[in-house]
Amino acid sequence: MDEFSLIDTYFKVITHYREDVIFGIGDDAACLHVPPGMQLLVSCDTLVADVHFLSTWSAYDIAYKAVMVNVSDIAAMGGSPCWLTLALTLPTLDEKWLQQFSQGLRDALNQYQIALIGGDTTRGPLSITLTIHGLVSEGRVVRRNGAVPGDKIYVSGELGAAALAVACEARHDMDESDKATLMEKLLHPTPRVDLGRDLQAFAHAAIDISDGLSADLHHVCHESHVGACLALDNIPIHPLVKKYQGNNALDFALRGGDDYELCFTVAPKNEEQLLASLAHAGLCCYCIGVIEEQPGLRAKTSEGESISLKPRGYSHF
Amino acid sequence: MDEFSLIDTYFKVITHYREDVIFGIGDDAACLHVPPGMQLLVSCDTLVADVHFLSTWSAYDIAYKAVMVNVSDIAAMGGSPCWLTLALTLPTLDEKWLQQFSQGLRDALNQYQIALIGGDTTRGPLSITLTIHGLVSEGRVVRRNGAVPGDKIYVSGELGAAALAVACEARHDMDESDKATLMEKLLHPTPRVDLGRDLQAFAHAAIDISDGLSADLHHVCHESHVGACLALDNIPIHPLVKKYQGNNALDFALRGGDDYELCFTVAPKNEEQLLASLAHAGLCCYCIGVIEEQPGLRAKTSEGESISLKPRGYSHF
Repeated sequence: MDEFSLIDTYFKVITHYREDVIFGIGDDAACLHVPPGMQLLVSCDTLVADVHFLSTWSAYDIAYKAVMVNVSDIAAMGGSPCWLTLALTLPTLDEKWLQQFSQGLRDALNQYQIALIGGDTTRGPLSITLTIHGLVSEGRVVRRNGAVPGDKIYVSGELGAAALAVACEARHDMDESDKATLMEKLLHPTPRVDLGRDLQAFAHAAIDISDGLSADLHHVCHESHVGACLALDNIPIHPLVKKYQGNNALDFALRGGDDYELCFTVAPKNEEQLLASLAHAGLCCYCIGVIEEQPGLRAKTSEGESISLKPRGYSHF
Repeated sequence: MDEFSLIDTYFKVITHYREDVIFGIGDDAACLHVPPGMQLLVSCDTLVADVHFLSTWSAYDIAYKAVMVNVSDIAAMGGSPCWLTLALTLPTLDEKWLQQFSQGLRDALNQYQIALIGGDTTRGPLSITLTIHGLVSEGRVVRRNGAVPGDKIYVSGELGAAALAVACEARHDMDESDKATLMEKLLHPTPRVDLGRDLQAFAHAAIDISDGLSADLHHVCHESHVGACLALDNIPIHPLVKKYQGNNALDFALRGGDDYELCFTVAPKNEEQLLASLAHAGLCCYCIGVIEEQPGLRAKTSEGESISLKPRGYSHF
């Protein structure tokens, strides 16, 4: 099997029909229609073996997660994901692995009606780069840099489970069902695309939590030239993180990455409307603090004490 | 230096101002304006160390070539390159290497007024994935699948020099100036963007020669459900390939990759207009054969003999 039949067998079959794809895989470039009044969003993420995923993960899970990580970036901007390119570097042509990978890719893309429009397949150490394209109505994009003092800070779900899954992959003293729940959170995150679209109308700023709440909120504050104060008691911690981490649980919620919840800020005057809209959509978000003028991250403990918070997340170098 | 200051230092500085970039690097996604009446072209290429480039190459050359390879894909569709994302995986944070890489990237992008709009930096075995975005007027894209029996086949320049450069990197019996000329062809190819735009009006099909003339022409024939007959005497061979390869020269021209000339087909009735337009633009193209109904590649030798031609190019697996 050469590179071209590999593409035919495993990737050309992933065709989600979309009217805006003039043509996809099979030429020097894909050709796409961007409707008038829409702006194009582009984001790209690389997943490297033993950094972003373990070699023990199934190819299905690697592909599935790679897509979700990228979809999350579009969700954080308030956009709808549309098209994806895949650059896959493989050490060998392992047909069983490719079959699983292709299936994971297909299942993930179909969930959001995303079309695979092109890519490149090369030989080398295993790594996966996805570039995702989304659309957002003109002028409605939600950025990191729009937070304003007085804004309430929200997160879209309980935090820490993915980080706990990473920390506990080799632990043998855990309930198997708990372990499975955590691995599910790590391997099959649910990007908040519907919420992201709702945020267009209400949020001043948004980011997805990939590096960890404190690190990602720090990005929002830095880009918006503001600071933040978190109410530690209000930070939603995944129940299994509380169960297994005890006093460390809050740390997992603040610093653990890979949850792909959204963190966003909203002006107090829009809060009521936002909550109504979330309730209508069956979404549950948590108010965890407030944006302040003074730069830096701070936190209020349950005793009312104010402490400084160091943003900490994953850095590759 | 962490990942974020790396991006600030080496990549945020590469800002080619374009009005269609609403915002680029620094958020979860870039946001771009696609003018009405234009279609979006997307292409992606990975360059892996010791496959697409040697570790002995300078970081400047690696970056420069990576861009040109991608620009060439947009040129082959008749489009104009606009925006680029870069996924860079590095084994270590080597500031001198990054400085050179950043400079090569900048010089390449500035030649075509392309904006770097985003990317990802990760740690792992050296590899580079670029995703390039171009624009083309609605309905004017030139594809691989439009070749029609009777079409004349053209290439945009002399072939074989890049493949000879690869084959001869370790040879010591060559003139240094010849070697430098060949390395220049390999490291700094010139994508045919202007020609590609001209082809919109005249060509039935086009492809860029990255895998080798016979392999790439085979793609055109396969996608167009036609065959081709080449006049071997008319295939333009780079003079240094003739000088150093003698009887093998034609083989280098037919099968050597990495030249990034365009191969395209044009209906006889449009030939005159095309040649006038090329002459006006100072471009020189060579008619090398004709598209035929019968599938497969054939060639006519100088003795008038007809032989079958096996498409051969690089395959990763």
